[in-house]
Amino acid sequence: MHILVLGGDGFCGWPTALHLSARDHEVTIVDNLSRRAIDLELEVESLTPIRPIGERLRAWKEVSGREIGFSRLDLAEDHDLLVSLLAGLRPDAIVHFAEQRAAPYSMRSPRAKRYTVNNNVRATHNLLSAMVTTGVDAALVHLGTMGVYGYGWSGSAPIPEGYLTVKVPTPDGDIDREILHPANPGSVYHLTKTLDQLMFSFYARNDGLRITDLHQGIVWGTQTPQTVLDERLINRFDYDGDYGTVLNRFLMQAAIGHPLTVHGSGGQTRAFIHIRDTVRCIEIALNNPPEGAKPQVFNQITETHRVADLAELIGKLTGAEVAHLPNPRQEADANELNVRNDRFLALGLEPTTLSSGLLEEITDIAERYQHRADLTKIIARSVWRAGMPTSGDLMTELPR
Amino acid sequence: MHILVLGGDGFCGWPTALHLSARDHEVTIVDNLSRRAIDLELEVESLTPIRPIGERLRAWKEVSGREIGFSRLDLAEDHDLLVSLLAGLRPDAIVHFAEQRAAPYSMRSPRAKRYTVNNNVRATHNLLSAMVTTGVDAALVHLGTMGVYGYGWSGSAPIPEGYLTVKVPTPDGDIDREILHPANPGSVYHLTKTLDQLMFSFYARNDGLRITDLHQGIVWGTQTPQTVLDERLINRFDYDGDYGTVLNRFLMQAAIGHPLTVHGSGGQTRAFIHIRDTVRCIEIALNNPPEGAKPQVFNQITETHRVADLAELIGKLTGAEVAHLPNPRQEADANELNVRNDRFLALGLEPTTLSSGLLEEITDIAERYQHRADLTKIIARSVWRAGMPTSGDLMTELPR
Repeated sequence: MHILVLGGDGFCGWPTALHLSARDHEVTIVDNLSRRAIDLELEVESLTPIRPIGERLRAWKEVSGREIGFSRLDLAEDHDLLVSLLAGLRPDAIVHFAEQRAAPYSMRSPRAKRYTVNNNVRATHNLLSAMVTTGVDAALVHLGTMGVYGYGWSGSAPIPEGYLTVKVPTPDGDIDREILHPANPGSVYHLTKTLDQLMFSFYARNDGLRITDLHQGIVWGTQTPQTVLDERLINRFDYDGDYGTVLNRFLMQAAIGHPLTVHGSGGQTRAFIHIRDTVRCIEIALNNPPEGAKPQVFNQITETHRVADLAELIGKLTGAEVAHLPNPRQEADANELNVRNDRFLALGLEPTTLSSGLLEEITDIAERYQHRADLTKIIARSVWRAGMPTSGDLMTELPR
Repeated sequence: MHILVLGGDGFCGWPTALHLSARDHEVTIVDNLSRRAIDLELEVESLTPIRPIGERLRAWKEVSGREIGFSRLDLAEDHDLLVSLLAGLRPDAIVHFAEQRAAPYSMRSPRAKRYTVNNNVRATHNLLSAMVTTGVDAALVHLGTMGVYGYGWSGSAPIPEGYLTVKVPTPDGDIDREILHPANPGSVYHLTKTLDQLMFSFYARNDGLRITDLHQGIVWGTQTPQTVLDERLINRFDYDGDYGTVLNRFLMQAAIGHPLTVHGSGGQTRAFIHIRDTVRCIEIALNNPPEGAKPQVFNQITETHRVADLAELIGKLTGAEVAHLPNPRQEADANELNVRNDRFLALGLEPTTLSSGLLEEITDIAERYQHRADLTKIIARSVWRAGMPTSGDLMTELPR
């Protein structure tokens, strides 16, 4: 099928585009290159060297013989171009990654909060409106986040896949009602994904759009079978305080001899997935669209771990020390987490476990590219409310 | 106190600004005059003659001796000006009406859908962000809508004021959880109010903003004790297919001898409130702000009626006939509606009932200004999905 990958230059989008191309789909990437622009703003780069999108696409053609299309387009701003693109290409499926995706960045400044809301809401709504306008009946797959659920809301019950049935009291006794899991976003970024959910529900019901929302955990790992084929195809590895997610941060810190920076007690339990599984999940979701009327929701996670346990595991493997820093987020210091992910498992996902993928990450990525690390960018300093404490740099030069 | 009235040139905002000024508050209106611009776009005008905002304010000073400030500012576009305004005025309270408020308009075209989302979401989020940036700890009162709840969701239970407690099944038995009433918006306009709710919840929790969301029914009536003092102060009376709400439409139709246009069977039950009660409710809400951490929600309604019953009542009073037209909306043909409004009643609201206010509306507004009616604008033609049927004009000239 012909698949548009919106945000196909980013950390999840790029390996997804390659994976779908390798699986013989016709792929067109749509991206405004905003992730690269944010690197310039933050004065940071991926630890791995990222080539310009044109070079990436030429390298993919050299390596695979396959062509991926590219359209530089800002979904939030260029609605009319998006309509033209959809009307011209009439894709069978659309994968929507085109949102600002870092929680700390979304809390960094008033400007970043507004950018995150204005970009993400308009990108999603422009897309939905353009699909209705053009009558393109593509299966739409969107990257959501586990963060829409919050932590600890449902007691000892596992977090369901999107919907749950509750009992509502009435004068005639309790009645059962299926509801979208209540929204408990922990940042402006997570908030935008809860706004997306409501837009999806409306457009599915009013216009019959076929939408799958994937509530993904924290992605770790860098390479997929495609990105590893040529260094020009390598995927991003973000380690900075805004875009570096916790597991990648630990791995990179271990590789360069930096203490593993745990925010607060480390009692936070989070859900994880390897980037190799992300791209497979996207393909599974594309092959299993819902009927219209109601969006379907999959939880895109494979494991859960306490942050402190992860730090301990990586410390044992590598000898790294652990440093407990003030938590820049407003969140519970500790939580349990029990998540259902039956749907992807039933559809054939075979997870890459932490135990099988860790070593590759340390040796092939973090150690190999450690010379590219900027040590002033490692500590997370975007705080959830003005005046919350942060830490100074823990290391100022690389060990020789 | 010093109160900002955002959207203070509109149908609810203008009489609210006058009411608060009459009650000795210092009032500043902030408005981009978008409602007037939409009139130009739709080639329609309020049945009542609306004077320019400068003339309105001069007339108010002549009549009352009081000054109301005015700042022309687009909340969605001019964030930095909003920050300057808040930092300069440091208001004690803010009333936020500054959103596109017509459901049919929001479904009229792809452009109108996008305008409604982009304007409403950005206006609300810019305001929240600017309050945090400036540290202005004002009580914020927002006009929501009963339409966030949908109709018939909670069976025989009345619609609660914002929150309800449900039972969530867990392996250890059911647990009670308070949730925001699930969102069931019936149009893109209503959708934006459900998005507002999630933004309010986040900013209350993360930043301690003190927010009251007023889920208002359909407003009817035109004049308040202030707007009636001078014709230059008169409030809007919208009768067109996009902005004319059902009860005002019937009254105006009755006055000019037009059939009362009922969409579908008229079995839809809706909640209503008179504009005189709206302005009182706003004042009550301003005087009773919540603590931070969680927005408080009031249902701002005083009566419920079936649309067909309203048509029958007005038909009996005036001799008007009833015409059943195709319903341009996707909604249930009939519903029950039972709404809690205990909170405003407990705080002293004494409702203006339909039976006491109808006649004034017919003689002083609809009959008096009927010569200003454009008969081609009466039929609702904004449909919820392309291809839904609409009606032609039922009357092409005024009876002599």
